[in-house]
Amino acid sequence: MKDIIKSKGDFTLPGEAGYEDLTLKLAEKWGADAIRDSDGTVLSDKIVSADYDIYSTICLVRADNTWAKANRDKLQQNYLMSFPVVAEDSQIEIDLLKDYFREQFEVNFNDDPKKWWQVFDRTTGEEVSKENWTFNAVSGTVIVKNVTKWHKYTVNFLAYRIWEAISMYNHITNNWGDREHQMPVDPIYPETQQFMLGYLQKWIDEHPKTKIVRFTSMFYNFAWFWGDPSLQRFHYADWGSYEMTVSPRAMQLFAETRSYEMNSEDFVNAGAYCTSHNVPSKKLLDWMDFMNEFVVNFGRKCIDLIHAAGKVAYMFYDDHWVGTEPYGKRFKDLGFDGLIKCVFNAFEARLCSGVQGVKTKELRLHPYLFPTGLKGEPTFMPGGNPALDAKRFWADIRRGLLRAPVDRIGLGGYLHLVQDFPDFVDAVKHITRQFRTLKQFHAEGAPYTAPLKVAILTAWGKLRSWVYVGHFIHGMELYEVTESLAGLPVEVTYISFDDILKKGIPQDIHVIINAGKAGTAWSGGEHWKNEKILETVTQWVAQGGGFIGVGEPSAVHSTGQYFRLSHILGVDRETGDTLSNVKKEPVNLPNNHFIAKDLKDEIDLGKTTDDIYLSGKNAKALSNKNGLSKIVVNEFGKGRSIYFSGFKFTPENTRLLHRSLFWAAGREDDFKPWTCSNVHTDCAYYPKTGKLVVISSSDNTEITRVYDGRGNASEVTIEPHGIKIIDI
Amino acid sequence: MKDIIKSKGDFTLPGEAGYEDLTLKLAEKWGADAIRDSDGTVLSDKIVSADYDIYSTICLVRADNTWAKANRDKLQQNYLMSFPVVAEDSQIEIDLLKDYFREQFEVNFNDDPKKWWQVFDRTTGEEVSKENWTFNAVSGTVIVKNVTKWHKYTVNFLAYRIWEAISMYNHITNNWGDREHQMPVDPIYPETQQFMLGYLQKWIDEHPKTKIVRFTSMFYNFAWFWGDPSLQRFHYADWGSYEMTVSPRAMQLFAETRSYEMNSEDFVNAGAYCTSHNVPSKKLLDWMDFMNEFVVNFGRKCIDLIHAAGKVAYMFYDDHWVGTEPYGKRFKDLGFDGLIKCVFNAFEARLCSGVQGVKTKELRLHPYLFPTGLKGEPTFMPGGNPALDAKRFWADIRRGLLRAPVDRIGLGGYLHLVQDFPDFVDAVKHITRQFRTLKQFHAEGAPYTAPLKVAILTAWGKLRSWVYVGHFIHGMELYEVTESLAGLPVEVTYISFDDILKKGIPQDIHVIINAGKAGTAWSGGEHWKNEKILETVTQWVAQGGGFIGVGEPSAVHSTGQYFRLSHILGVDRETGDTLSNVKKEPVNLPNNHFIAKDLKDEIDLGKTTDDIYLSGKNAKALSNKNGLSKIVVNEFGKGRSIYFSGFKFTPENTRLLHRSLFWAAGREDDFKPWTCSNVHTDCAYYPKTGKLVVISSSDNTEITRVYDGRGNASEVTIEPHGIKIIDI
Repeated sequence: MKDIIKSKGDFTLPGEAGYEDLTLKLAEKWGADAIRDSDGTVLSDKIVSADYDIYSTICLVRADNTWAKANRDKLQQNYLMSFPVVAEDSQIEIDLLKDYFREQFEVNFNDDPKKWWQVFDRTTGEEVSKENWTFNAVSGTVIVKNVTKWHKYTVNFLAYRIWEAISMYNHITNNWGDREHQMPVDPIYPETQQFMLGYLQKWIDEHPKTKIVRFTSMFYNFAWFWGDPSLQRFHYADWGSYEMTVSPRAMQLFAETRSYEMNSEDFVNAGAYCTSHNVPSKKLLDWMDFMNEFVVNFGRKCIDLIHAAGKVAYMFYDDHWVGTEPYGKRFKDLGFDGLIKCVFNAFEARLCSGVQGVKTKELRLHPYLFPTGLKGEPTFMPGGNPALDAKRFWADIRRGLLRAPVDRIGLGGYLHLVQDFPDFVDAVKHITRQFRTLKQFHAEGAPYTAPLKVAILTAWGKLRSWVYVGHFIHGMELYEVTESLAGLPVEVTYISFDDILKKGIPQDIHVIINAGKAGTAWSGGEHWKNEKILETVTQWVAQGGGFIGVGEPSAVHSTGQYFRLSHILGVDRETGDTLSNVKKEPVNLPNNHFIAKDLKDEIDLGKTTDDIYLSGKNAKALSNKNGLSKIVVNEFGKGRSIYFSGFKFTPENTRLLHRSLFWAAGREDDFKPWTCSNVHTDCAYYPKTGKLVVISSSDNTEITRVYDGRGNASEVTIEPHGIKIIDI
Repeated sequence: MKDIIKSKGDFTLPGEAGYEDLTLKLAEKWGADAIRDSDGTVLSDKIVSADYDIYSTICLVRADNTWAKANRDKLQQNYLMSFPVVAEDSQIEIDLLKDYFREQFEVNFNDDPKKWWQVFDRTTGEEVSKENWTFNAVSGTVIVKNVTKWHKYTVNFLAYRIWEAISMYNHITNNWGDREHQMPVDPIYPETQQFMLGYLQKWIDEHPKTKIVRFTSMFYNFAWFWGDPSLQRFHYADWGSYEMTVSPRAMQLFAETRSYEMNSEDFVNAGAYCTSHNVPSKKLLDWMDFMNEFVVNFGRKCIDLIHAAGKVAYMFYDDHWVGTEPYGKRFKDLGFDGLIKCVFNAFEARLCSGVQGVKTKELRLHPYLFPTGLKGEPTFMPGGNPALDAKRFWADIRRGLLRAPVDRIGLGGYLHLVQDFPDFVDAVKHITRQFRTLKQFHAEGAPYTAPLKVAILTAWGKLRSWVYVGHFIHGMELYEVTESLAGLPVEVTYISFDDILKKGIPQDIHVIINAGKAGTAWSGGEHWKNEKILETVTQWVAQGGGFIGVGEPSAVHSTGQYFRLSHILGVDRETGDTLSNVKKEPVNLPNNHFIAKDLKDEIDLGKTTDDIYLSGKNAKALSNKNGLSKIVVNEFGKGRSIYFSGFKFTPENTRLLHRSLFWAAGREDDFKPWTCSNVHTDCAYYPKTGKLVVISSSDNTEITRVYDGRGNASEVTIEPHGIKIIDI
């Protein structure tokens, strides 16, 4: 193997001034070809002058605090909803920023509140007439007159962000003390654009040794509203939503180009904001399209400057990625040379790998070289075990990389922290070698993929392929399903309800997955009221399609059944409307059914949907010992369906899903080739190189039988988090 | 004690021909003063001639099968919805009774289907035009033309009931083999009324020795639709709903007197029917009022015949009770002398006890003298332990009887079955003595009740006081709460949302309980969209009221919070609309909080509501070891609230509720007098007799401290299911 795999390259190291020797020693050991800075670090001359590509981070919206302070009316903004106040009298005074983090926000009284704000009676849902409220810029309050006693009132108001969210997070996490708070400026203003382009040109001129300019990222952070830390640190967090792109100027430009106006409530949405979890409205999609157009147009001007200087531009696909939409139609027009994604999981690796319109894709591995992880757990500090963390994260990510390639990997953070963790240094060395091996195999030809194509049906469709909605909410059905899918040898695509309405279900799809809670964008919410959707999916299954539902698939409170596809799924949920309808006793699916064959332990799907009952005459349930129907199997016409009452990414459940896909598609015979008997192991066969790669995600040594294309098995023993490469 | 308590009377024994000696022996042993027949038994001359009040059962609607067979167009009817059929072509044929129990139903083709039936596209919820369907009386089908492929269709059709539901149940349960199926006739027709009155007069003349005529009950069974037994025995069951009162004639009379028409869908309601669990519509309430008026008017004619013969009339408050509404305004007009309720629980004893307008109230105790119980479990057969069953049921019922009296108790079923169970015979003897003792104490003066009045707020209000909705659905929050309440020394009343709108919250209420799933009549559903309700309850709590919410109190999908009283409760439920709003970490309530003081074990509230989060800044949670917030305590203005995420009737939870009532009312100091330290025991003090009664619901011997009116404790040891009477 060593003869064909290079031992250097495709690795980005975070350098650190003051630790020049360490930087260069680890660059050598890990085979780095590029050295980067991080938020809060700089690279010294000694590092910059060494023989590595220099990789410099720039975040234009927080680049120059002096300019920001001189142009506070051009800081970025967003709408906030004040916390509800119950009226105990006919007049109330609302302290707008009460219970928000006052170091993040400052009320914008510059743009006429009477024009841009709205006050709501949240008991009735009605807007309060503008004559009935006044604001006080000194006290930061709104006074509402003629209120109805005992109703709840809120104000939608504009707030400047006076501390940029990511640097705020880094500052607080790393205890940067009295370091100045960086403020984000908004490129929506021509003056800001002019400043930014000037700043960028100057920066380019001052960084002659920089080869790769890493944008962190473009202009707008994902939505992250913080609360009063004495009550609750985080108030609202959504990695995919656009609340932080709003300003009066942007709304005016939107009205001019889209011929209608957005108002504050379009963004505030009674305090739910425009979360990615909810079905996007036409207005929200229009706004996203508008902001995407703006970000791409102005972003391209920045990237043109980079290219003109003979450098390349990479985008960090986190932080301020909003507006760039890597799965959108305009992403290629930005002209980026590379895309960097910070990853914990296999599906995030697929998220990065699947983007079109950019040449180089790079993964930023975890753990970050920070004292603590995202949940505050110890990492590079006493009590942490970063080597084990690195192996586990890598084992998870590697499942995705077995199926789809990226071009580079790298680390982030403060390099000096690794000094006390030599086993981490060794672990990274092993990871870099494995990565280069897999990259080489992919380069020579794609791995074997079974003749089975899965479409994940959501309200977002392709735009949010390999969906990822933040560090803050795990356990969602689709999140867990996606992680299982990311390592399976099947083709995966995303479709939206609009796709189905416009084009029907593509001919090459074998199985549709619909997963999530009722009302969410993932399950589909209101779209399931559309009879055309129901007709199309019903016909498709009747004619032989496979349907897998998880949680509350096709669910919406409407007429008839709650699960609108209950005739397909054979299952429905009692939501309290039909409590006197006696529910059928579950009929058990035999334990040796195709989908259950590799199950050894009790099924654990995590938090499952309750009050599920069998509605189909022939539906059968795979039940737990305690009798709960966890999984229901049904047939409809020539098609098949499987219902999961929940899902949790585990090796056992991944196998259950894997088998379910093939059963639902009626392709049981195609399941076995190039699979492993042991659910803790995965394998991929690369026919062009004649290599079979077997990997383990287990903390223990595992023995597994690996089936080749003819179904012949060979036994393989594999170390914890290990990899074996077999010549075929 | 013995000197004041009589040893005979107030007990009804089920006699049985062929077992005359046994009948008279047990009548003596149990101190019976009345002997009854049962469905399927007769009393012989020897029994009838003994010195007991004779107590004969009559059920007029199934009294004469010969007449019924000769008048099949006057059988009782109901609407059924055919099971949904998915259209695979442009025309479908629906077999109306498919998957229903064909021995219960026969399609009514006599009354013009085109007038009385409706066909629905359940995918869109729209009715199919009458031109597009035809019916075939021979095949029992409906053919629907021009359907939309892949939509679901159903037919609302009228069915005669050809087997009366209760005798059908008794027949099948007791294996009556080829005994003729009794058919229910409908008194809505003048001919039926004439027949019934004639039959009744003849029956009176033929039963000169009968003193008490027990009606089983009046005319209409609670709704009970059975399914094809090969699939599912029961399809729809609701002890309180009116589906079985429907007929074209009744609908015509309704239209004449109420000036608008009901249609089939008013009863079918997309297959959910008019379950008591759902918020009643205005139309349903009008229908109930109409049927109540009819049942009372014609029922009174029957009872007048009884009285004219010098006999008394009792009503069995089960089976065909629908239309009589014992908590309704007309019940007294029926003129019944007695009311008999079959009871398992304390709250059912309260249900019977609380009825106005009838002199004698009698409880029919469990177990029935049947081989098996309602769930098919062995009772009077090998494997059964009817003595223990009797003691346990009695211990539960006795909690209610401690607080509110009834006049008689009795048994039902087939007396010969007790012959092999002498310990059952002894147990009943003890029960009769205890009953007479408690009755005597109540007769001398009411027991001590704490100065605390609780109102249960539901969409039904007083009409469904001590609500009971059937043998078929337990575990409902309000069902469990009510059973706990039924034995507590507090005053309990019921109010509806309409009561609040019309009269506000009565001055004497200290605590409101709202318990149930969202959308149900128990929680209140749509009523919580009414801002006047929200204003009134909010103001009332702010001014010092106590509010206890269980499950999904005040919940409705509307504007603002899901729990519309979240400002009072300090808690809300995430239903998927605000998934990106970060939820507060629960703040723990100290374990020594007033409500938690008697808790020893982990809190087990049964099946709890998931996705609950603290929404109030000052709300505190009493959490389980696994961290789930089960109970949340909050303050609002001068008032207090407690939220339970579920409820299960257990001794521990009853105490938790008991303490919660006093805390919510701000009356902690009034809690202690006349309570027991051991949660498995209850006590009641009867000041007029100077007696303190201590009871145990435990299967074990219990030691308890009993607090008197001054808070002084005395220790009492009490046998399993025992009772102690202490002179004070």
